[in-house]
Amino acid sequence: MTETWLLDGNRVAAAIKEDLAHRIQGLAARGIVPCLATILVGDDPSSATYVRMKGNMCRRLGMQSVRVDLPAETTTEELIAAIHKLNGDSQVHGILLQHPVPSHIDERAAFEAIRIDKDVDGVTTLGFAQNAFGFADYPSCTPAAIMAILDDYNIPIEGKHAVVIGRSPILGKPVSAMLLNRHATVTTCHSRTARLDEIVRLGDIVVAAVGKPRFVQGDWIKPGAVVIDAGYNEGNIGDVDYESCFPHAAAITPVPAGVGPVTIAILLKHTVEAAERQARSIR
Amino acid sequence: MTETWLLDGNRVAAAIKEDLAHRIQGLAARGIVPCLATILVGDDPSSATYVRMKGNMCRRLGMQSVRVDLPAETTTEELIAAIHKLNGDSQVHGILLQHPVPSHIDERAAFEAIRIDKDVDGVTTLGFAQNAFGFADYPSCTPAAIMAILDDYNIPIEGKHAVVIGRSPILGKPVSAMLLNRHATVTTCHSRTARLDEIVRLGDIVVAAVGKPRFVQGDWIKPGAVVIDAGYNEGNIGDVDYESCFPHAAAITPVPAGVGPVTIAILLKHTVEAAERQARSIR
Repeated sequence: MTETWLLDGNRVAAAIKEDLAHRIQGLAARGIVPCLATILVGDDPSSATYVRMKGNMCRRLGMQSVRVDLPAETTTEELIAAIHKLNGDSQVHGILLQHPVPSHIDERAAFEAIRIDKDVDGVTTLGFAQNAFGFADYPSCTPAAIMAILDDYNIPIEGKHAVVIGRSPILGKPVSAMLLNRHATVTTCHSRTARLDEIVRLGDIVVAAVGKPRFVQGDWIKPGAVVIDAGYNEGNIGDVDYESCFPHAAAITPVPAGVGPVTIAILLKHTVEAAERQARSIR
Repeated sequence: MTETWLLDGNRVAAAIKEDLAHRIQGLAARGIVPCLATILVGDDPSSATYVRMKGNMCRRLGMQSVRVDLPAETTTEELIAAIHKLNGDSQVHGILLQHPVPSHIDERAAFEAIRIDKDVDGVTTLGFAQNAFGFADYPSCTPAAIMAILDDYNIPIEGKHAVVIGRSPILGKPVSAMLLNRHATVTTCHSRTARLDEIVRLGDIVVAAVGKPRFVQGDWIKPGAVVIDAGYNEGNIGDVDYESCFPHAAAITPVPAGVGPVTIAILLKHTVEAAERQARSIR
């Protein structure tokens, strides 16, 4: 039996950040500091952790981060007003609204309020469609991170059968679109899929984006498949039952240190690109 | 062996148009005549036929149709200017740019120029994304026609495996999204799909949207599957090899008189709905 590759997200993220460090220096020489604004509504502890990690990573790379903390009782209108303020702030290059927002808020309306050229997380409908058509500046970060990992390890995509478990607007749907645009045959599964194990067993590439801890079982994995775990559940547990899947897979992402760190690196990359675009437009 | 259902597009279209006739009368009583503008660039004979059919159908139902014919050498800028003129014309409720336009024109840019509230053919990126998220006013007409046929015949979609052959922005991609939103497990195939016959054989519902005459073969069809032929090739030939598929299918759309007439009925329905929305907004 051949060895299973461990797809090391930390290594992929480090390579992206090394490239960014140079580009950030280039911008600094022109007096521009790429700035990511993160908006956190309420006090969900894991969301607060994610936002803090993103801010820390910005500072470590010499980028600026602006943090907007809003109380849990913020209305949709108030949230949109906060987004509009960031839209109009020329010092802010990217805007991230941490998902999920409290349930009384119309999250879709809030996402839509983000100006397309600052939508570095790819959450607007326009950003989604541009990604589905293959010409987005900023595809959703987790899907883009998955593609970056596959590409970094030279895993072939064209003509392969990719099975995506999950159909959320920021993960399952856009990663299905990106795999399709790279010429995979793509099956999208979800909670109402019948005989899920049989469907997953068709996959040369399996992407778990379902939000259920250790959901994907080893005997669902076709021997030699590539398994990507995009899940993040409480306690830093993925959607894939790593131990049972590992022996079947040709390659697999761990959790932690798989898709997660690459997602943050992609977010920063998009923010740097937004700053570079702004720099070009004011030259 | 049970009988194969013939999915009669003319019957489904007639039911839609009967409903529309009442609504058009209601609008007429208020002095509003729903109006579809069609733009044809160049002199492709089949495109001219489609545009003429749409115009005729409008008149037969008491709707207005405006036809804009532009020469084959029209530039992207000239085409967009023509679209902007229709955008600004309050008598025009829906705009259809006949696909395909001559290859020197940036078709995507032209589609994007159509105002979202007049995009009755669902061709803008925004309309595409709204459809993928399940809240489009006007999903692409052929995908919507396919869903209308399935619903008219009470064909269950939830939990079924739908295989879509084709991934164009106006057909394969949006119909995949619509089937997914109706809780099918959806596999999208295309020209680079390996072992296409095996993949198609997984489908409880097979949608052929590939643009190759009589492409889908009978032995690709799982016994009892529902086969939808969304192809229209020269000589009014579908993408499905009807004779070989018929014995395997539980239900099948013919060509002609399958998806085609329903597509036109949906286009008119969207135009009537656009007029109704305008009527409500000026009340």
